[in-house]
Amino acid sequence: MALKARALYNFQSENKEEISIQENEELVIFSENSLDGWLQGKNSRGETGLFPASYVEILRSRSSSSYTDYSNSPAGSPGHDSSFCVHPPNTSISNQGSFEDDDDDDWDDWDDGCTVVEEPRSGPGTNGHPSPHLQYPVVYPSQNAGYRPKPALERQDSISSSKRGSVVGRNLNRFSCFVRSGVEAFILGDVPLMSKIAEAYYIEMGSKGPQWRANPHPFICSVEDPTKQTKFKGIKSYISYKLTPSNITSPVYRRYKHFDWLYNRLLHKFTVISVPHLPEKQATGRFEEDFIEKRKRRLILWMDHMTSHPVLSQYEGFQHFLTCRDDKQWKLGKRRAEKDEMVGASFLLTLQIPTEHQDLQDVEDRVDSFKAFSKKMDDSVLQLTNVASELVRKHLGGFRKEFQKLGNAFQAISHSFQMDPPYSSDALNNAISHTGKTYETVGEMFAEQPKNDLFLMLDTLSLYQGLLSNFPDIIHLQKGAFAKVKESQRMSDEGKMDQDEADGIRKRCRVVGFSLQAEMNHFHERRMADFKRMMQSYLKQQIIFYQRVSQQLERTLLMYDNL
Amino acid sequence: MALKARALYNFQSENKEEISIQENEELVIFSENSLDGWLQGKNSRGETGLFPASYVEILRSRSSSSYTDYSNSPAGSPGHDSSFCVHPPNTSISNQGSFEDDDDDDWDDWDDGCTVVEEPRSGPGTNGHPSPHLQYPVVYPSQNAGYRPKPALERQDSISSSKRGSVVGRNLNRFSCFVRSGVEAFILGDVPLMSKIAEAYYIEMGSKGPQWRANPHPFICSVEDPTKQTKFKGIKSYISYKLTPSNITSPVYRRYKHFDWLYNRLLHKFTVISVPHLPEKQATGRFEEDFIEKRKRRLILWMDHMTSHPVLSQYEGFQHFLTCRDDKQWKLGKRRAEKDEMVGASFLLTLQIPTEHQDLQDVEDRVDSFKAFSKKMDDSVLQLTNVASELVRKHLGGFRKEFQKLGNAFQAISHSFQMDPPYSSDALNNAISHTGKTYETVGEMFAEQPKNDLFLMLDTLSLYQGLLSNFPDIIHLQKGAFAKVKESQRMSDEGKMDQDEADGIRKRCRVVGFSLQAEMNHFHERRMADFKRMMQSYLKQQIIFYQRVSQQLERTLLMYDNL
Repeated sequence: MALKARALYNFQSENKEEISIQENEELVIFSENSLDGWLQGKNSRGETGLFPASYVEILRSRSSSSYTDYSNSPAGSPGHDSSFCVHPPNTSISNQGSFEDDDDDDWDDWDDGCTVVEEPRSGPGTNGHPSPHLQYPVVYPSQNAGYRPKPALERQDSISSSKRGSVVGRNLNRFSCFVRSGVEAFILGDVPLMSKIAEAYYIEMGSKGPQWRANPHPFICSVEDPTKQTKFKGIKSYISYKLTPSNITSPVYRRYKHFDWLYNRLLHKFTVISVPHLPEKQATGRFEEDFIEKRKRRLILWMDHMTSHPVLSQYEGFQHFLTCRDDKQWKLGKRRAEKDEMVGASFLLTLQIPTEHQDLQDVEDRVDSFKAFSKKMDDSVLQLTNVASELVRKHLGGFRKEFQKLGNAFQAISHSFQMDPPYSSDALNNAISHTGKTYETVGEMFAEQPKNDLFLMLDTLSLYQGLLSNFPDIIHLQKGAFAKVKESQRMSDEGKMDQDEADGIRKRCRVVGFSLQAEMNHFHERRMADFKRMMQSYLKQQIIFYQRVSQQLERTLLMYDNL
Repeated sequence: MALKARALYNFQSENKEEISIQENEELVIFSENSLDGWLQGKNSRGETGLFPASYVEILRSRSSSSYTDYSNSPAGSPGHDSSFCVHPPNTSISNQGSFEDDDDDDWDDWDDGCTVVEEPRSGPGTNGHPSPHLQYPVVYPSQNAGYRPKPALERQDSISSSKRGSVVGRNLNRFSCFVRSGVEAFILGDVPLMSKIAEAYYIEMGSKGPQWRANPHPFICSVEDPTKQTKFKGIKSYISYKLTPSNITSPVYRRYKHFDWLYNRLLHKFTVISVPHLPEKQATGRFEEDFIEKRKRRLILWMDHMTSHPVLSQYEGFQHFLTCRDDKQWKLGKRRAEKDEMVGASFLLTLQIPTEHQDLQDVEDRVDSFKAFSKKMDDSVLQLTNVASELVRKHLGGFRKEFQKLGNAFQAISHSFQMDPPYSSDALNNAISHTGKTYETVGEMFAEQPKNDLFLMLDTLSLYQGLLSNFPDIIHLQKGAFAKVKESQRMSDEGKMDQDEADGIRKRCRVVGFSLQAEMNHFHERRMADFKRMMQSYLKQQIIFYQRVSQQLERTLLMYDNL
């Protein structure tokens, strides 16, 4: 009777209504119908609760084989380290309609009623789908029929590749981000140069290699005052945030769903950039103060990362999001962003790279070293996240309780001392009773402290977990491009390909290589600044905390002096 | 096959070899033969280990009835609140030979080979047995046969009372401390006035009622340098402590067994005084540093209490213990103390009380209020002991572990940051790594901290647990005496007793009342001083601790300044 499912990814519960699930864990599903993208069920530890529908695969007799069908990687395709590349989907991605925000059925006046943004049919060979969630097979319409496909690699169930070929073998793993991002098509020269490209993002050589040229009009933006708003005479509620960019005088007000719209635009457009994840959604408690506070703190960090990024901060859609205060203009700008053609692989056409020669092997080594680093950093960020989360629990639970128990025990001593009045010293009893109260206060201070230090640490760590989880796919793009260069060079050496064409592939691969290096460079710069700030802030708050505790105790100690 | 036993008292395990047992808990005994006074067995929670043999009663079919035989209290005897009065025996009491110290088979040169001190046959009607352990029925030889015993209250199994009677009914509960301490006999005038009484202890009226007159030659005494000594060519080991009384230039060296000898003398002699318990024995780990350190700290507190007590500090046996440095003199002094006739009830003859009138009812009210106080204080001391013990465990375990885990996580972050050298900042990595080490240090500081604060608190609380556990018996003596006064007055009113005799009883009861009030007064004075000191010391050490933590963090924070 009970439906079974298998967890595709790890999911960590963040609320008491949710349950954690482990990759490959078998689950019991109470109903196949998801509620706002959440399913209710039971995990193997017997816990029952909610988990994201998209994190699990419902087990049916026929489904298991079709799943594994997609995972075989044909020879000649770049080595795809799937354990590293395939990451759980960002829970913020809502372009499947099932993962909508808390107020998705509550249409904004600005909204045109379409939350599932249509794929921008910007041209053949491009597809702006950087999400690990794939619902539809990617279609590459035939365009350059001069090459015959290799029959041995032909896949009958593929709608696309049979119609088009190239001397350089195509990667038949349709789940490879190299393929679905369109970067393969770009490398092979299949993404046509547009007649007029309005945008240009520059990469220049810095002291540590390629770097994004700074935004000529840098700015920051505050996120403040999450405020509960109602509409339809109070039937619908939502939270609006006040955003004030530093280069503009008056603020705009945005809802999480607007952030989410923007986020999806960013994902579509910026193929080779690590777009910061939005703070997580949660199934319940959307209007609880702690949740709103947490979302605000994380939106601030997200915004800081956006404005600090030389490319993202200049994106027209972002500027529109930050400045538009007119309903009609909003709709126009929104439509414009959604019709943007320079997304996905075409975005690579907007990049202006230095002419400087870079040895491909050097770049590959650099990327490998970044890959190892980012894997290790991902592990250590997870480790610190777990420790810090556990510390939060200890602060709210164990630590508070211990100090409260101590406080109560002191008060009990004081109380007993009052029971034999002729021999009792009021001053001493008061001092001991006050010591008891002080330790209760210290217990409360412990419980409050995470708001001052650990929460900020966890926010930063969460941002970095998101950024780091993007890199495997981005690195995979570069790996794929490199493989194509090597293959084309080999074919050119063997006389099976024009040197011109091989040079074209190499040239386009440089664009991918430069952009990845610029992105690595930017990541490192931000990481150093962010972790320095995070550590400093944590230590400062800890120092203040321990000083406050000792000051509390000092004041209490004074009470014993006059006895 | 397995022997069963029933716990007579609560016993709290203090070592991993020991198990806790609860009063009335049924236990399985592995062997009836005790090892150094400890039995091995299993409690009802399935824990196996050691517990004191004297805390349990081995269950045999015939034993259960004989045990309950003793508990019925005949009419006319003072109400005996057994739940309050009957306390577990102090584990230090070793006069049954089964509870010897760690080195009991290792005779000191001074020792005459007799650890089981003979009952000083000081005279009829006295018995210096304040311990709740009773091995022998107490014998009251006939002396005043002018009164006929009441046949209805006659007990055939009693060796004593049948031969002697009094108009005032005797308490037939031979386990009553009122009876076995000899105070009943004293009140009834059965303790003869000695021809020459060398000692005299004075009670005077102070602002808060009767108080012991201060020792005219006050002193303190240090307990230092626990040193492991060997004898018999290293076969036997023991720890010696250096004692230096403030009024004497050169120290003496004493072992725990000497303390124990003295303690047993004090118990025999000072019926109405709350003798501080010696620090507990333990079955294992006698020579472990922590245990030696703990015993030393507790001997210091014990010594402080001894020297602070106006009566105890003047006791000849104590003076002998503190000053004798000659083998022969030691034996002589020891023998003298053991032959002391002014012990138990006779000790009451040495008390000189003020002539001031006290209303008996007032005294009784005062005692009742002290009784309620001491019960409540006992509870709160136990509560604080439990909380503090748990805090010690947390400091050594959970707190240390949390900070170490945080330290490790920071170090892992720093380690990951070193993996991409061209983009790596050594200064930042070092700062983060150092932060990790700092939190490991903070973890160690947490683990070390109980030595600075909680241990001292637990030492003080342990001393007071001992002192408080003495009071129910002492209060019971006074209650018994009061009952006798009322009874004799009634009989005198009814013409069944000479007024002279009734007056004698009332007069002797005043001695008991004054001494108890002096003892209550002394207890309160010490309690106020000790708890003030304990709380001050705890707070001071806590302040130092939190300041040290924040200083550690401050130094670490500086490392981020120059990045």
